[in-house]
Amino acid sequence: MRIPPIVINFKTYSEAVGDRAVRLAKVAVEVAEETGVEIGVCPAHTDLYRVARAVDGDGVLVLAQAVDAAEPGSRTGHVTPEMVVEAGADGTLLNHSERRMRLDDLKDVCRACMNEGLLTIVCASDAMAARAAGALQPHAVAVEPPELIGTGTPVSKADPEVVERSVEAVREVSEDTAVLCGAGITDGSDVRAAVELGSDGVLVASGVVLAEDPKEALLDLISGLE
Amino acid sequence: MRIPPIVINFKTYSEAVGDRAVRLAKVAVEVAEETGVEIGVCPAHTDLYRVARAVDGDGVLVLAQAVDAAEPGSRTGHVTPEMVVEAGADGTLLNHSERRMRLDDLKDVCRACMNEGLLTIVCASDAMAARAAGALQPHAVAVEPPELIGTGTPVSKADPEVVERSVEAVREVSEDTAVLCGAGITDGSDVRAAVELGSDGVLVASGVVLAEDPKEALLDLISGLE
Amino acid sequence: MRIPPIVINFKTYSEAVGDRAVRLAKVAVEVAEETGVEIGVCPAHTDLYRVARAVDGDGVLVLAQAVDAAEPGSRTGHVTPEMVVEAGADGTLLNHSERRMRLDDLKDVCRACMNEGLLTIVCASDAMAARAAGALQPHAVAVEPPELIGTGTPVSKADPEVVERSVEAVREVSEDTAVLCGAGITDGSDVRAAVELGSDGVLVASGVVLAEDPKEALLDLISGLE
Amino acid sequence: MRIPPIVINFKTYSEAVGDRAVRLAKVAVEVAEETGVEIGVCPAHTDLYRVARAVDGDGVLVLAQAVDAAEPGSRTGHVTPEMVVEAGADGTLLNHSERRMRLDDLKDVCRACMNEGLLTIVCASDAMAARAAGALQPHAVAVEPPELIGTGTPVSKADPEVVERSVEAVREVSEDTAVLCGAGITDGSDVRAAVELGSDGVLVASGVVLAEDPKEALLDLISGLE
Repeated sequence: MRIPPIVINFKTYSEAVGDRAVRLAKVAVEVAEETGVEIGVCPAHTDLYRVARAVDGDGVLVLAQAVDAAEPGSRTGHVTPEMVVEAGADGTLLNHSERRMRLDDLKDVCRACMNEGLLTIVCASDAMAARAAGALQPHAVAVEPPELIGTGTPVSKADPEVVERSVEAVREVSEDTAVLCGAGITDGSDVRAAVELGSDGVLVASGVVLAEDPKEALLDLISGLE
Repeated sequence: MRIPPIVINFKTYSEAVGDRAVRLAKVAVEVAEETGVEIGVCPAHTDLYRVARAVDGDGVLVLAQAVDAAEPGSRTGHVTPEMVVEAGADGTLLNHSERRMRLDDLKDVCRACMNEGLLTIVCASDAMAARAAGALQPHAVAVEPPELIGTGTPVSKADPEVVERSVEAVREVSEDTAVLCGAGITDGSDVRAAVELGSDGVLVASGVVLAEDPKEALLDLISGLE
Repeated sequence: MRIPPIVINFKTYSEAVGDRAVRLAKVAVEVAEETGVEIGVCPAHTDLYRVARAVDGDGVLVLAQAVDAAEPGSRTGHVTPEMVVEAGADGTLLNHSERRMRLDDLKDVCRACMNEGLLTIVCASDAMAARAAGALQPHAVAVEPPELIGTGTPVSKADPEVVERSVEAVREVSEDTAVLCGAGITDGSDVRAAVELGSDGVLVASGVVLAEDPKEALLDLISGLE
Repeated sequence: MRIPPIVINFKTYSEAVGDRAVRLAKVAVEVAEETGVEIGVCPAHTDLYRVARAVDGDGVLVLAQAVDAAEPGSRTGHVTPEMVVEAGADGTLLNHSERRMRLDDLKDVCRACMNEGLLTIVCASDAMAARAAGALQPHAVAVEPPELIGTGTPVSKADPEVVERSVEAVREVSEDTAVLCGAGITDGSDVRAAVELGSDGVLVASGVVLAEDPKEALLDLISGLE
């Protein structure tokens, strides 16, 4: 199991909750089958089970949006690695800019996810954070300058240096960790720019979730990988 | 829809995750049908959908363990009131001692849950906290001294004053808010003591979730309501 | 000791740190002496001792900007009620919108501050939060809609209803708690409007701290109390 | 300016607040003068100014217990790097187990402290966290297994491997970062063991703060450096 080059974060968008989450995940399955490119989808906690059942074994990996540094037992409202596995997910985003974690919790949850066989993608805001995230040796670090998220101004064109420096920073501390980049990614040329800067893929959200035609949007993104 | 007199918090116990969550919820359905007493079950976020489908319309209310003060949109890893509704839940616990909220977030999420028609049970550690929680006018306040949680020493016997003073404190600020009590509740006599102190029901967790025979444990608890 | 009708939050403004904090506090002393109106000043933790020594007994009360829900002992980086007392302060702001507290911590720290004889001013964003804050029976609740903070658009004119409803909400749950209002307060007419709406005073920050002539700004504010 | 081999965290102990903080810092000055060994003292925020004035230039460095990831401006209750400098401090502890920080905030505050010329000592609970902390290239990483803090069971004897592995982990990612170890350190033999495992010094708290004779305790600790 490896990090897919296109990962879609459904966030809390109403457009991707409940039945709409399942529908969007099935679009990803169609695109993955047509193109042979693996896609990751990150539905809300409450939709993990439904989405995992809907896409099972079809070239689409299901990732949680977050996992808490909580163990099984007397804890309330937390999502443990075990729950994510039971729901059928393959991995998780961690430390997204909209859900930052304490360094110590991030370390604990990375370790717990690895023990459960879950893929881990740790988000970071810049090269310095990417270096620290990489030092935890997750499967991937996703660099996303928060100020570009949701803007449609792609990080890979607006701030190519942060991508290059993050790739370099992660390589220094963890050879086997992939690097994704995100924030403002909306079309194939953004993806192409990201890959040319050394990243292994992209993390997208509104560019696909809010697209009039998500399938077309996904196909466009994937065209940038060729 | 009113607050059930018995609410079971599944917490993050492995004994109540995934298939085991569904199984435990079905035990609650059996007991509710046999006794005519309504029961609330609080599975993990990842099990809300499955549990809600399994118990639909059978005398069992499904409550989330927590909801975040997050709106639909560009937020990651959060559970919104909308998600909980889409998953089929009827309400939510809030501010559990294992998931305390900022006062302002608690206020926002209470208001958002009311707008979505969700039942809200706000937890509080003592009478002073219960007064503040009650001032938000949720459907119920659940008083749980954290030091008794999971001990098997029932709050209704070990600290009857905290229950009495909490009932009084909540009444002062919100006439229509029910009061539950919890922490260490394990059998019918604990429930009877709770009701005699003025509370409208109990919040239980390990007493049912970890019981050798959860059905028997539930029937025993309910015997204290008569 | 009662809540002063004018309370100045120095925030983290460079203009009010270190020697500049002491200087600004001395301006408050001058104005308090000239007008006979008591003024509260809220310097940073690191300046509490210096400011308290500089203004001692001169019609100016010194309040911390926050106190942590931490007891003496094995805690690091926290400011306890005891520390604030030792530094010479008379009270503290709590739960400012830039430093929101968990309801339970807020309850604990209110109680601890009362035990130490410290004045407590609990901030709240709207009438619903003010009701919950008031239920803790602090010396004052300060209503500040976060969206107006630092704008120069005074809450007492832009949103008079939030002030009126907050005064009413606090009265319902705690007769002896004063109500301040804040956000965008910059001149005497803003203060007059605030008092006419039923509040007992104002909480200001940039209006004084960043004023070209803080003394003049303070005198102008106080003119609104007459 | 370099990291002192003995750093004393005053925590929130009543024994080291206000006048007692100044007194304890002066004991450190005496010991530093008698032995020629530099000592770091970490008083509470409210005592930084007093302690810094009392020990100025006498072989004792003054460090804050924490600094917040907050910039000058409209923030309340936070301690900025600028405030710590204005109070006369030389550096700060960061991310203590009793005050964990989000990875992103830790990164921001490390960078801000470096820009202000402040020494940074980032705490970590184990080798994996030490690797991530080291990746931020602070002046020092202090490894403290939380379960040993305050026990009197020294990390350097109870868990020598965590010290060795942390030293190695930090070296891998940051050559110029020193490594301290802490938790349970009370006498010279604990310090000697720590140094033999490759650490550059120790972080102590109760061993000195609560000692009947702090001067004797400090002299004993320093004997382990020889």
